[in-house]
Amino acid sequence: MHTSTPGPITLLTDFGDIDPFVGILKGVILSINPGAVIVDLCHKVPPQDIGYGAVMLDTAMDYFPRGTIFCAVVDPGVGSSRRPVLVETSDYFMVGPDNGLLWQAAQRNTIKNVVHLTRSRYFLSCVSATFHGRDIFAPVAARLSTGIQPAAFGEPAQELARCVPDTPEPVDRGLLLTVRSIDTFGNIGLNLTWENFKPYADKGFCLQINDTAITGYYQSYASAPENQPFVLTASTGYMEIAVKNRHAAKLLAVSRQDKILLMEKGSSPSSDI
Amino acid sequence: MHTSTPGPITLLTDFGDIDPFVGILKGVILSINPGAVIVDLCHKVPPQDIGYGAVMLDTAMDYFPRGTIFCAVVDPGVGSSRRPVLVETSDYFMVGPDNGLLWQAAQRNTIKNVVHLTRSRYFLSCVSATFHGRDIFAPVAARLSTGIQPAAFGEPAQELARCVPDTPEPVDRGLLLTVRSIDTFGNIGLNLTWENFKPYADKGFCLQINDTAITGYYQSYASAPENQPFVLTASTGYMEIAVKNRHAAKLLAVSRQDKILLMEKGSSPSSDI
Amino acid sequence: MHTSTPGPITLLTDFGDIDPFVGILKGVILSINPGAVIVDLCHKVPPQDIGYGAVMLDTAMDYFPRGTIFCAVVDPGVGSSRRPVLVETSDYFMVGPDNGLLWQAAQRNTIKNVVHLTRSRYFLSCVSATFHGRDIFAPVAARLSTGIQPAAFGEPAQELARCVPDTPEPVDRGLLLTVRSIDTFGNIGLNLTWENFKPYADKGFCLQINDTAITGYYQSYASAPENQPFVLTASTGYMEIAVKNRHAAKLLAVSRQDKILLMEKGSSPSSDI
Repeated sequence: MHTSTPGPITLLTDFGDIDPFVGILKGVILSINPGAVIVDLCHKVPPQDIGYGAVMLDTAMDYFPRGTIFCAVVDPGVGSSRRPVLVETSDYFMVGPDNGLLWQAAQRNTIKNVVHLTRSRYFLSCVSATFHGRDIFAPVAARLSTGIQPAAFGEPAQELARCVPDTPEPVDRGLLLTVRSIDTFGNIGLNLTWENFKPYADKGFCLQINDTAITGYYQSYASAPENQPFVLTASTGYMEIAVKNRHAAKLLAVSRQDKILLMEKGSSPSSDI
Repeated sequence: MHTSTPGPITLLTDFGDIDPFVGILKGVILSINPGAVIVDLCHKVPPQDIGYGAVMLDTAMDYFPRGTIFCAVVDPGVGSSRRPVLVETSDYFMVGPDNGLLWQAAQRNTIKNVVHLTRSRYFLSCVSATFHGRDIFAPVAARLSTGIQPAAFGEPAQELARCVPDTPEPVDRGLLLTVRSIDTFGNIGLNLTWENFKPYADKGFCLQINDTAITGYYQSYASAPENQPFVLTASTGYMEIAVKNRHAAKLLAVSRQDKILLMEKGSSPSSDI
Repeated sequence: MHTSTPGPITLLTDFGDIDPFVGILKGVILSINPGAVIVDLCHKVPPQDIGYGAVMLDTAMDYFPRGTIFCAVVDPGVGSSRRPVLVETSDYFMVGPDNGLLWQAAQRNTIKNVVHLTRSRYFLSCVSATFHGRDIFAPVAARLSTGIQPAAFGEPAQELARCVPDTPEPVDRGLLLTVRSIDTFGNIGLNLTWENFKPYADKGFCLQINDTAITGYYQSYASAPENQPFVLTASTGYMEIAVKNRHAAKLLAVSRQDKILLMEKGSSPSSDI
């Protein structure tokens, strides 16, 4: 009935690494399925940032084997009425809170089945009001990995809460972009796909950040000149701003959620901001 | 003779993640038992903080499967006369320095057997004075996971060094609490159990932090009002102070080891501090 | 033909942990070899620091089982003409960019065979210009772990790019050392082996750091006096400066790449710096 043989259990959370929370999830999973293969996707989603967690899941999903069970927990509404769900897509399973976190990836892979997790026999025997990762989502992911059918975990649900990915905002002579991420290297991730950037790349473009105008596009970090911010297509498929072997975000004083204006070259930015 | 079939090897250390130390432990374990299942509990115990490591181990223990081998290394006395030990409890095995780190969890699970690790044939062939995690504890944990009996690793020992958990200090009209942890979300962990808090919760309470008086108790983050610090029962079973979707420790300027006064509502704090 | 049965895949990168990059590598590996054993060595090599990555790999290598596949990616030249390579040594396999990262460890273990990775059928089907860890190195490591022969991955290559480890610089009456690392505990790692230090240890030595003269050598942290910086032989085999239960680098205001003068005791430092 379900699409795939259960594969590894992949964990995505905002739990960080200074606490034993992630370790506890793994203990719970191995208590139920001693043979489970557990993979950390990332545990440093910014706290409570559902939108960014959704992007990370969507970015990483395709690189995991068919049947992977994504156990994703960014859950500011834990203990409220938001539903715990299991989603079956064409290739994957996803377990987590129904707060938008799962939607972007799930709908891209095609949603087959949504189950509202109501059968408490599959949870830990004592469910807290603050840690459903431990008490509900990890146990369900672990039991799913032992071959229990998705439908057994609860009632069919029609819909999954949506968290529509942030897209560039069209303005007078360009696009107002949002800084979506700053990675370990300081590269500045934008909410701009190659498709949306291409018309600007073709005609010549200008990205205005504080006092810096960025007009160069390069295919790789290594091919760019030193000390000069440029645009490239990141490995995620989205555009990013980088400086070769330097921390672009620090150099340009850019933070997450900052707005950046993209224009055709030659346009005057002053009237747009 | 021993209580359980050896399960996964669970690592708890203060080694952090900027060095290859934890990776090296895993290499040592897999060199001895290529089939070992290794789980990271946490590697960010504050450096040399035996008491906090002991609390983390105790908090997490019950979520791991029977037979789990906890290899715990917070070891400021490495190279001194403190003993390396293996502890067998009702459900688990623990390997580490005998400096109090293991006691709190071990005694709660009931200590069956303590072995002073003296058989150097089970260590790495060259034991350094600075890294017994690599040279003694990881090899012993790995060999234990292959089924070698605990008694084979050394001499019986009668006692385990104790590190008695810090409890609230009774003062004139209340309890003087200690901040035990600040988690990733900024929630402030207290050395206060629900049992000790209940009389105050029943009558009405006031927690005084700098200029802020906290008087609210909520069962979940989601049910609390915005921007208002409150008390809740954390997933650990201990009480914590939180602010909904915010970093309570930063907002309240609280650090680990700070003292906080808990009183019945209506008491004047001025005479107590 | 090759030296060992493939063992675990051990990952060493500068990817950090705030992004899903490392998780994606694991997804790629498990998609190819669902039974692969994956070990994190370290992901916090300072960004683009090939020399330090090379030292970490060399420091950790011997603790891993024969047949381990080290997939090491510190790769500022990604997308340029630097070659992707597979190296077979006496006991191990190494996969990564040919930029010096692999050389120090590989030559110490004895290089048997270097293969320039040219067979794109073993890569992901779409190779980006910015993330060869995901697109080339992880897939090759995974396929190698399934038993494919090293020679199948490309053309024989004669040489491996070198990154010669930094050694102390002889100066008038001593050695000018470089701070190679600051570990989690604040211990200051030097580019000084016991062999190079021994003549100074025998005659009495003085390490001058800002206004502090360090003259003590101890075998362990525990045996040193409180609050007094001293030299010890770290678990890596290299010398380090430590302060018992304190963060030596903060106390002495020392950073990575700082230079420190080692002299015989009684020498005046003033004329040397």
